[in-house]
Amino acid sequence: MNLATSLRQTPLAERLREVRSLTAALAGPLSDADATVQPMPDASPAKWHLAHTSWFFETFVLAEHVPGYRPHDERWPFLFNSYYEGAGDRLARDRRGMLSRPRLDEIMAYRAHVDEALDRAMPGFDAEALTLIELGINHEQQHQELFLTDILATFAANPLLPAYAEAAPAKPGAASTPGWTEGRRGEAQMGADGDEFTFDCERPRHSVWLQPHAIADRFVTNAEWAEFIADGGYRTAGLWLSEGWEWVKREGITAPLYWHEDGRSFTLAGLRERDPQAPVAHVSFFEADAFARWAGARLPTEAEWEDHARITDPAAGHQLDRAGAVMPAAGGALFGDVWCWTGTAYLAHPGFRQPPGTVGEYNGKFMSGQMILKGASCATPRGHSRATYRNFFPPAARWQFTGVRLARDL
Amino acid sequence: MNLATSLRQTPLAERLREVRSLTAALAGPLSDADATVQPMPDASPAKWHLAHTSWFFETFVLAEHVPGYRPHDERWPFLFNSYYEGAGDRLARDRRGMLSRPRLDEIMAYRAHVDEALDRAMPGFDAEALTLIELGINHEQQHQELFLTDILATFAANPLLPAYAEAAPAKPGAASTPGWTEGRRGEAQMGADGDEFTFDCERPRHSVWLQPHAIADRFVTNAEWAEFIADGGYRTAGLWLSEGWEWVKREGITAPLYWHEDGRSFTLAGLRERDPQAPVAHVSFFEADAFARWAGARLPTEAEWEDHARITDPAAGHQLDRAGAVMPAAGGALFGDVWCWTGTAYLAHPGFRQPPGTVGEYNGKFMSGQMILKGASCATPRGHSRATYRNFFPPAARWQFTGVRLARDL
Amino acid sequence: MNLATSLRQTPLAERLREVRSLTAALAGPLSDADATVQPMPDASPAKWHLAHTSWFFETFVLAEHVPGYRPHDERWPFLFNSYYEGAGDRLARDRRGMLSRPRLDEIMAYRAHVDEALDRAMPGFDAEALTLIELGINHEQQHQELFLTDILATFAANPLLPAYAEAAPAKPGAASTPGWTEGRRGEAQMGADGDEFTFDCERPRHSVWLQPHAIADRFVTNAEWAEFIADGGYRTAGLWLSEGWEWVKREGITAPLYWHEDGRSFTLAGLRERDPQAPVAHVSFFEADAFARWAGARLPTEAEWEDHARITDPAAGHQLDRAGAVMPAAGGALFGDVWCWTGTAYLAHPGFRQPPGTVGEYNGKFMSGQMILKGASCATPRGHSRATYRNFFPPAARWQFTGVRLARDL
Amino acid sequence: MNLATSLRQTPLAERLREVRSLTAALAGPLSDADATVQPMPDASPAKWHLAHTSWFFETFVLAEHVPGYRPHDERWPFLFNSYYEGAGDRLARDRRGMLSRPRLDEIMAYRAHVDEALDRAMPGFDAEALTLIELGINHEQQHQELFLTDILATFAANPLLPAYAEAAPAKPGAASTPGWTEGRRGEAQMGADGDEFTFDCERPRHSVWLQPHAIADRFVTNAEWAEFIADGGYRTAGLWLSEGWEWVKREGITAPLYWHEDGRSFTLAGLRERDPQAPVAHVSFFEADAFARWAGARLPTEAEWEDHARITDPAAGHQLDRAGAVMPAAGGALFGDVWCWTGTAYLAHPGFRQPPGTVGEYNGKFMSGQMILKGASCATPRGHSRATYRNFFPPAARWQFTGVRLARDL
Repeated sequence: MNLATSLRQTPLAERLREVRSLTAALAGPLSDADATVQPMPDASPAKWHLAHTSWFFETFVLAEHVPGYRPHDERWPFLFNSYYEGAGDRLARDRRGMLSRPRLDEIMAYRAHVDEALDRAMPGFDAEALTLIELGINHEQQHQELFLTDILATFAANPLLPAYAEAAPAKPGAASTPGWTEGRRGEAQMGADGDEFTFDCERPRHSVWLQPHAIADRFVTNAEWAEFIADGGYRTAGLWLSEGWEWVKREGITAPLYWHEDGRSFTLAGLRERDPQAPVAHVSFFEADAFARWAGARLPTEAEWEDHARITDPAAGHQLDRAGAVMPAAGGALFGDVWCWTGTAYLAHPGFRQPPGTVGEYNGKFMSGQMILKGASCATPRGHSRATYRNFFPPAARWQFTGVRLARDL
Repeated sequence: MNLATSLRQTPLAERLREVRSLTAALAGPLSDADATVQPMPDASPAKWHLAHTSWFFETFVLAEHVPGYRPHDERWPFLFNSYYEGAGDRLARDRRGMLSRPRLDEIMAYRAHVDEALDRAMPGFDAEALTLIELGINHEQQHQELFLTDILATFAANPLLPAYAEAAPAKPGAASTPGWTEGRRGEAQMGADGDEFTFDCERPRHSVWLQPHAIADRFVTNAEWAEFIADGGYRTAGLWLSEGWEWVKREGITAPLYWHEDGRSFTLAGLRERDPQAPVAHVSFFEADAFARWAGARLPTEAEWEDHARITDPAAGHQLDRAGAVMPAAGGALFGDVWCWTGTAYLAHPGFRQPPGTVGEYNGKFMSGQMILKGASCATPRGHSRATYRNFFPPAARWQFTGVRLARDL
Repeated sequence: MNLATSLRQTPLAERLREVRSLTAALAGPLSDADATVQPMPDASPAKWHLAHTSWFFETFVLAEHVPGYRPHDERWPFLFNSYYEGAGDRLARDRRGMLSRPRLDEIMAYRAHVDEALDRAMPGFDAEALTLIELGINHEQQHQELFLTDILATFAANPLLPAYAEAAPAKPGAASTPGWTEGRRGEAQMGADGDEFTFDCERPRHSVWLQPHAIADRFVTNAEWAEFIADGGYRTAGLWLSEGWEWVKREGITAPLYWHEDGRSFTLAGLRERDPQAPVAHVSFFEADAFARWAGARLPTEAEWEDHARITDPAAGHQLDRAGAVMPAAGGALFGDVWCWTGTAYLAHPGFRQPPGTVGEYNGKFMSGQMILKGASCATPRGHSRATYRNFFPPAARWQFTGVRLARDL
Repeated sequence: MNLATSLRQTPLAERLREVRSLTAALAGPLSDADATVQPMPDASPAKWHLAHTSWFFETFVLAEHVPGYRPHDERWPFLFNSYYEGAGDRLARDRRGMLSRPRLDEIMAYRAHVDEALDRAMPGFDAEALTLIELGINHEQQHQELFLTDILATFAANPLLPAYAEAAPAKPGAASTPGWTEGRRGEAQMGADGDEFTFDCERPRHSVWLQPHAIADRFVTNAEWAEFIADGGYRTAGLWLSEGWEWVKREGITAPLYWHEDGRSFTLAGLRERDPQAPVAHVSFFEADAFARWAGARLPTEAEWEDHARITDPAAGHQLDRAGAVMPAAGGALFGDVWCWTGTAYLAHPGFRQPPGTVGEYNGKFMSGQMILKGASCATPRGHSRATYRNFFPPAARWQFTGVRLARDL
C-alpha cells in the first residue's frame, strides 16, 4: 500500500480536522492586513480563502444537511461565494481586496463555528452529505495551494518584499543530464473510475491511443532556463506560439516570474539565491512551449504523462506537509516541486457528465481557454494528488508553481 | 473517382488560373471604396485579400524561384504581409483599412503582373516551387472564403445594409427530425498521409480511440435555434461555459450574428427572410456548446467527425462554385453550408512537425486558444475540402459561416 | 479678529503638534487592514496618508535642514513619495493598496520619529525651514480631508458598509427658499498677497472684472436634488455638457454617489436617513453644471465666489475640529459642509510663478483638466481655509464632499 | 474697409454658392476610397464631411423652412448627423469609416440636390431661415478646414504616404529673432456684439482686465522647436504639466506630429523638407505649454490675444483661398499658418446664453476639457476668421494646424 492510499484511508472526520487545521496554520504568519490584500484579480486575499472554504461547507453541507442550521452571518455568502451562479449573487472577483472587514479574527471564528457544526453533525450524516464533505476537503486542499501562491503574489507586489516565513538554506543540487523514459504505445486507459474520491472532470476512465514517445526523467532546471535566456529565447519570434509572442511583447516578459536580475528569486522566504539545479518555476504555458521548441522537444500530452505516472506513488516528493515557506528544490520526484505543463487543452473526457446541481459548476464550466497541468507542486498538500488529477490554468498564467518536463516523439 | 479527386487532378497550371480568376471575379461587384473598408480587426478589406494572395506567390515562389524577378512594388510587401515574422515588418493588422491606395485597379494590375510571371515561369519550376504553388493555390482558396465573410461583415457594418449581389429566393426546406448515425468505435486513423496536398497541420496520420457515439444526420436549423432563444437559452447561465457566459453578458448577445428581430437576417444578398429549415449560421463556439447542452447532446470531437466523413465526397454539397451571394440553405450535405464546430481544441496532431522556413509559420504558431471546425461552408471553394481538413477560430468568433451538428454518447 | 486669523496666530510649533496629533487621531478607529485598503486609484489607503505626510517633512525639512538626519527607513521614500518627479522614483499610484507592510503601528512609529526630530530641531530652524514647516502643516491638513474621503470610499466599497465612527442623529433642517445676494460689479481684486501662508497657486493678487451677478445664500439641498432626479435630470441630454452626458451613460449614473434607493445615504457613520435640507454632497462638476442648467441658473465663477466670500470668516461653519464621523448638515455657512463647484477651470492666476525646486511641483503641474472648488467642507480642518483657497478636481470626481451653490446673471 | 469686412458683404446667396463650391473642389483630388477612410475616431472621412454639411442645410433650413421639401434619402440623416441629440439617433462617431456606400458620386449628387433646393427657395426665405443659412455657411467653412486636416491624417496613416495635391517648393524664410509687442493694460472689452455673424460662444461682449504683458511678433519656428528637442525637451518632466507628461510617456511622443527623423515632414503635398523658419505645426497644447516654459515664457491668454488682434485684418495672411496642398510657411501674419494655442480653457463668456432648439447644441455643450485656440490656419477659409473667434480642442489634440506664439508678463 503506497502512502497516497494510506493517507486516503484515514477516517473522514479525522482528515477533515487535519485539513481544516492546516489551513488555519497557513494563516499563522499573517497580519489582518496581509490577509486582506488582493494583488491582482486572479489571486484572492488569504482572508477570502479562509472564509470561502468555510462558506463551501456551510452552503453545500450544513445548510442542506443539518436541519435548523443557522448561517454564521447572513451577509457573508455574498462575500465568499466564488463563482457558483446557482448559489446567488456575489462580490465581483476583482473586488475581494476591499474586505478589511470581517477582520481576520472574525473569519477564524467563522471557521471555528463551521468546524464545530460539522463535528456535531458528522455522526448523523448520510452518504450524500459525506460525499460533499469529501468534496469540501479536496476543495479546501486546492485552496491551501492557492493560499500560498496568492500570498507569494501579495508579498511580491510589496516593494519591501516581505518574507512569509523563514526557510533553511537550500542544499544545492548536482548538475545532471536528463535521461528519457520510453512510454507505452497503443491503447491505454486514462481517467478515473472506482470509488475513491476524484473530481468529476477526471472521469470516466476511457481508452486513448499513445504514440511512440519518451518523457524526461527530471524537470527543466533554472540553469537550463538561464541558457534559454542567454540564447535569446525571449527575443526569437520563431520559438513562440503567435499568442505567446504577443504576450511576451505586450508584457515585456524576459524571464520567469519572480526572477530578479541579480541571480536571486523572490520566494515565500523572501529573496534567495536561485539554485541552478532546482526546477524552474513560475513559467507560463507559452514559455514552457517555447522552451520545449528551443530544446528540440515538446511538452508531454496529458495522456502520456498520466500513463507515465500510473505506477508512481503520488504522495512521494516535495509537497506540502505543514505551514511554511515552501519552494521547489533539486532532487524531486514526479509529483511535487512544480506542476508540469502539458500540451493538452482542458476539455471534457469522453463521456464526462457534469453533476446535477450547483456543485456541478465546480469544474465543467471552465473547459475552455485553459491548458492541463499534471502532478503536484511544493504547495500541493500531500495526499491530494493522483495520476488522473487535472489541474488547469490559462496559457499566460504563471503565479502558480508551474514548470516543465520535456517529452519527445520516438 | 469522386468529384473531389477529379478536381484535384486538374493540371496545376490550369487550377492556378482558375483559382486566381475566381478571386478576381469575387471582386467584381465591389467599388474601390467597398474594397477598402475594414469592419473590425479580425476581418480584412477585400483589397487586402486580393493583394495579399498575390504577395504570397511573389514572396514564396517568384522571389525565391525565378532568377531576376523584380517585385511589382518594393513598398508593398510591408502592406500585404499578413503575419510572417520571417518575411519582415508589416502593417499592423488593425490598420489594413487605411489603404485607399493602392487603388483597386492597381491591385488588379498587381494580380495580373504576378499571374503573368507565374505563367511564364511555370514550365521551368522544380518540384519545390510546384509544391509552393500548390500551397499558394490552397492559401488563396482560404482567402476566397475570408473575402466573402469579410465583405459580409463590411456591408453589415454599414447602416444602409447594401447587398453584395442578388440571389434567387430560397426554396424553403421541409421540417424534419434529425436522425442519428452511430459512429465506429475503438481504434481508428485520422489525419493525412499520402502525396495529395494537405496543410501541414493535417499530418501525420495517426491512431485515435473512438468512444461509442452517434452524430446527427443534419445541421441544427434556424427553427431549432429560435426554440433555444424562446426557451431562454441566452439568459440561462447554467447552459454556458464560464468564459462564454462572460462573453454573452459583456457583449449583450441574444441571437446569432446578423439575425434581425423582424425574422430577417442580413446576407450577401441583403436582408432576407430566414428559412427556418436552413442550417443556423454565424454562431460562436460558445453558442454552439450552450445549444448542445440545452439539447441534451454535445458537439462532436474532431476525430468522430473526421471518421464519420471519411467516406463522404467532400466536393458534394453547398459550396462555392462561382462569385455570388452564397448563403446556407436547407437540404445540404456534410461538406457545405456551414462549418461544424467541434469540441476539440486546435492543437498539434501527434508527430506534427512544423516545416522549416517562413512558410512553417502558416499553421503551427496558431495552436492555442482556438477550436477546430470541420467540413466546409457555402463560401468554401469546391475542391478545397477534405475530411482531414482543420479549420480553426477562437471560441467567440462568429463572422464565419459557422454552425452546429450535434453528437451524443452511446 | 476673526477665528481664522486667531487660529493662524497660534505659534508654529504648537500648530504643528496639533495638526500632527489630529492626523493620528483620525487613524484611531481603523484596524491595520482598514488602513491598508485602496478602493480606487484616485484614493489612497489611510496608512499611506499617515506615512506620506511624514515623508513630506522628512524629505523637504529634515533631510535638507537637519545636519546628520538619518531617514527612518531608506526603503520608504519609494513607497511614500506621491508625485514629485524631483524626489525620485516611486510606487505606482494604483498600487498603494499593496502595502500590508509596513504595519500601521510601524507607520505610527515613523510619525513619532519624525515628530521628535522636528521638535528637537525646531528651535534652530531658519526662515526657509520654517516656511517649509508651514507648507508641511498645510499639506498635512489637505491629507486629513483626503484621509476622511478616502476612508469613506474604502468602507463604501465593502458590501458590509462598516461605519468609521458613530454620530448623533442629525437635527433635521427646515425647508427654505434660497435668497440671492447681489455681487459687486466691475474691477475687483482676487488672489492672495501679504505674508500669511497661502499655496503658491493662490498668488498673486490681481484685478479681475466682475459682471452683474447674484449668488444663492445657501447650498442646493438633497430635497432639491431629489426633484431634479424626479424631473428626469439624469435622462435629459440637453441639460448636460457633452462629456458629462457620455460619463452619465457610460457609468450609469442616476444619483449622487453614496445615495441608496431606500432614501438613505452611506456616510462615515454608516447608512443614514438623508436629511432633505442638508446640502447635497458627492456630486461631480458635470452633475452640478447640469443641475444649475435645469434650475435656470449657473455655477458661480471663482472670482465671483471669492469676492462674495471676502468678508466672511473662513473658520466659521461645519468644518473638521476633531476625529469623527463628519457629514454635511443643514444650516451651515459659506465655508463648510461641502466644497462649492465653480464654472472656472483650474489654471494659473496671471503672474503665477512656480516656485523653484521640487516643492514647485506641488500645484502648478496640475493646471489642466480640472475645475476649481471654493470654500471648505465638513472634512476640511478648521483654520485651513480662506477666500483665496483653490481646491481642484477633475469634472467627473465625486468622492469628495462636493456640492453646489447657484449663481445667476443680473 | 478691410478685406474681411468686404468678404462678409458679398451677398448671402453668392457666398453660399462660393462656399459650397469650394467644398466640392476640395474633394477633387480624392477617389471614392480616399473619401471613405477614417484614420481615427476624432477625424471623419472626406465623404462624411461632404454629406454632413449638406445634411446640416437639409435639416435646419430645408426641412424647417421649405414647405413640402422631401429629404434626398430618408436613411441618410442617421448617417450624417454629427452630434445633435435633438436631431435623433446617429451612427457612432468611430464608425464613420464604414460608409463605402453612399458612393462619392452619390454624395456629390446629394450636394447638388441640396444646392438646387436652397437656390430655388432662397428668394422666399425669412430672416430666421437666412440666419440659419449664414450659420450653415460658417459651419461648412469649419468643415472645410477639418476636411483638409482629416485627409492629411488619412494619408499619413497610409504607409505609402500619398500626396493630396502638388505644391510649389517652399521659399525658405529668413531666420529672425522674435520681437515683443506690449499689450494694453487694465479694463478691455472682448467677445462679440453687433449684427455681424458670429458663433454663439463668441458672445456677449464683456469687460476683462488685462495684466501687463507682451506678445511675440511671430510664431515659434521649426528651428526653435528643433532646439527644444535637442535640449531634451521631451525628456524633462519638470517642463510639463502632469497630464502632459503622462501623455508623452504613454504615447511615446518625441516630436511634433508628422515630423520624420530625416528632417522631412509629411504634408498635404507628401513628404517635404521642413523649412526651419516656418511656424511649427501639429503640436498639442501640452507641447505648446512645455515649450513656453522651456523658453522662459508662457502662452497668451485668450483675452490678451484677442485684444492684440483687434486692429489686425483677419483676412490677411496664409489662409485657404482655393483647393490645394496648403501648409504653413515662413513670413505669415497673425491670422493664418497655424492656430495659436492659448492658456485659456474653453468655457462660457460671462452672460453666454445657449440658443434654444437643436442648433443650441452647436458650441455650448463642448465647454469642458478643451483649450482655446485663436487666429486661423493655412486651412481656414479666408473670410471665416475674426478676433473674437474661439476655436477649441482637447489638450492632447495635434492633427490640426496648431502652433505657438509666446507671451510674457511685464
